[in-house]
Amino acid sequence: METALIRHIRSQANTELIGDDAAIIDNNIITVDMLTEGVDFILAEVDPLWIGRKALAVNLSDIAAMGAVPKWIFMAVALPQNGALELAQQLLAGMQPLIEKHNLLLAGGDTNTWDGGLVVSITLLGTATEHGVFKRSGGKAGDRLFVTGKLGGSILRHQFFFEPRVDEALFLNKHYTVHSAIDISDGLTLDLHRLAAESRLGAVLYESAIPIAEDAFKLSQRSGRLPMEHALSDGEDFELLFSVGPGEAAKLLSLQPLSSFGVTLYEIGELTVESGLRMLGADGVLRPLTPQGFEH
Amino acid sequence: METALIRHIRSQANTELIGDDAAIIDNNIITVDMLTEGVDFILAEVDPLWIGRKALAVNLSDIAAMGAVPKWIFMAVALPQNGALELAQQLLAGMQPLIEKHNLLLAGGDTNTWDGGLVVSITLLGTATEHGVFKRSGGKAGDRLFVTGKLGGSILRHQFFFEPRVDEALFLNKHYTVHSAIDISDGLTLDLHRLAAESRLGAVLYESAIPIAEDAFKLSQRSGRLPMEHALSDGEDFELLFSVGPGEAAKLLSLQPLSSFGVTLYEIGELTVESGLRMLGADGVLRPLTPQGFEH
Repeated sequence: METALIRHIRSQANTELIGDDAAIIDNNIITVDMLTEGVDFILAEVDPLWIGRKALAVNLSDIAAMGAVPKWIFMAVALPQNGALELAQQLLAGMQPLIEKHNLLLAGGDTNTWDGGLVVSITLLGTATEHGVFKRSGGKAGDRLFVTGKLGGSILRHQFFFEPRVDEALFLNKHYTVHSAIDISDGLTLDLHRLAAESRLGAVLYESAIPIAEDAFKLSQRSGRLPMEHALSDGEDFELLFSVGPGEAAKLLSLQPLSSFGVTLYEIGELTVESGLRMLGADGVLRPLTPQGFEH
Repeated sequence: METALIRHIRSQANTELIGDDAAIIDNNIITVDMLTEGVDFILAEVDPLWIGRKALAVNLSDIAAMGAVPKWIFMAVALPQNGALELAQQLLAGMQPLIEKHNLLLAGGDTNTWDGGLVVSITLLGTATEHGVFKRSGGKAGDRLFVTGKLGGSILRHQFFFEPRVDEALFLNKHYTVHSAIDISDGLTLDLHRLAAESRLGAVLYESAIPIAEDAFKLSQRSGRLPMEHALSDGEDFELLFSVGPGEAAKLLSLQPLSSFGVTLYEIGELTVESGLRMLGADGVLRPLTPQGFEH
């Protein structure tokens, strides 16, 4: 589906698209993300506060992937008739902690009721810092790949409660030279594939270095899939995946500069001249890796 | 519904809200409008191109109400699974003529499919000109009220095919001193009430001067309501309602400067120190007028 709209957007000249749902206009960064009932959440199964939080958090993660400063929220909602007012208030209440943490402003909105399910669409405006923005396309061959946390099993809980890596990204942007970045929304291998492809490169992942979340192990017990598979393709981790040159990589590993944010950096692979994704197994053998994840 | 979100927004200090769904940030104007199936359109009864057109046009009308320049479109859609790709393409095709007319850029988007109805949410970014922006709150007592076209009966056709008064508003902003403005989205009396209230004034409408659209007469025949009632409260006219001082009013009436756009200006009343809305009847009697229209 993305293709129709995104291809149209890409066919136009004078905007710079960063990923699929964000743009840079002058110094402003704009992201748009819509959550729909039944796809992004089951209204009957979750607290509406979580939905409000998630709707904002996924946009914050898009801004974080650019190393930019989020600022203004515009929110459009389609609310089921029944209990609409209460639901709207809960969505707002769910957003409030992130609004306060990141000093955001809810600057506009459009509230609708209808005979359908809940739809929450947020447009988030941010601004670039003097250090510029991260792009998917900036990766260089030989860059080391890092992630800001463990991956997989986010459907158990993390998908609603992840902390978008806004402050971490700003810190990295200020103090390090990051060549490329993306947030892992659709799965490590799928988002890595996007980053590598936009950088006109391939990538190798080190199997033994992929940090696997506890929830990926839990989920594995009922899914019948390996924890590693969950880590590679589950999506909604909303960790940053980024690449830096070997010198910066060594510094990041020795200093772990994000530990003051409670975040451990994991080096998980590298960008390669050879295109496509490959996995370097614990046995030292390189195998082709098919990008898998959540396709919209 | 508006209240929960909008009251929250208004409670915040450092943004300037223009109306309910637009904001000014630095020199940027941002509007957000969402259309939902069954409320803003019946998917089975209309050409999807019309929906795309309308989704963009309502946002353009918001920008026009500020006398600003529309520029960048961000579009988020929730599409029914069945025929989603084709529908997305038709929405875009319907927007295309307005994109070209106003030199807009589709700069970002988020496309989703789900088991629900069609939802189209557009965020439109524009910029203020060196002449500043129109506000609802700028009206002065004694200002004359103008509209840019005939009103009422828009449900028959106009709601999909209106021309947002973008160029007309820019022309007025450049060449005249407009004190306050709003676009008539929810009905003349309701939107006039908003403009007057935000200017801390009341208003008088001249009954004999209200321009009534042909479709208001047509609709009257099957609605059993007077054509005038349709003109006063139907909504979705998307004409500009604005106020100017008496001197500017005389110039506008004698010159009809928007005739080159095919637009006739109608003087329909004035802003008053006395609060509330009143109607000056053809019999010369002033009567109280209750704001009526489409409440979200």
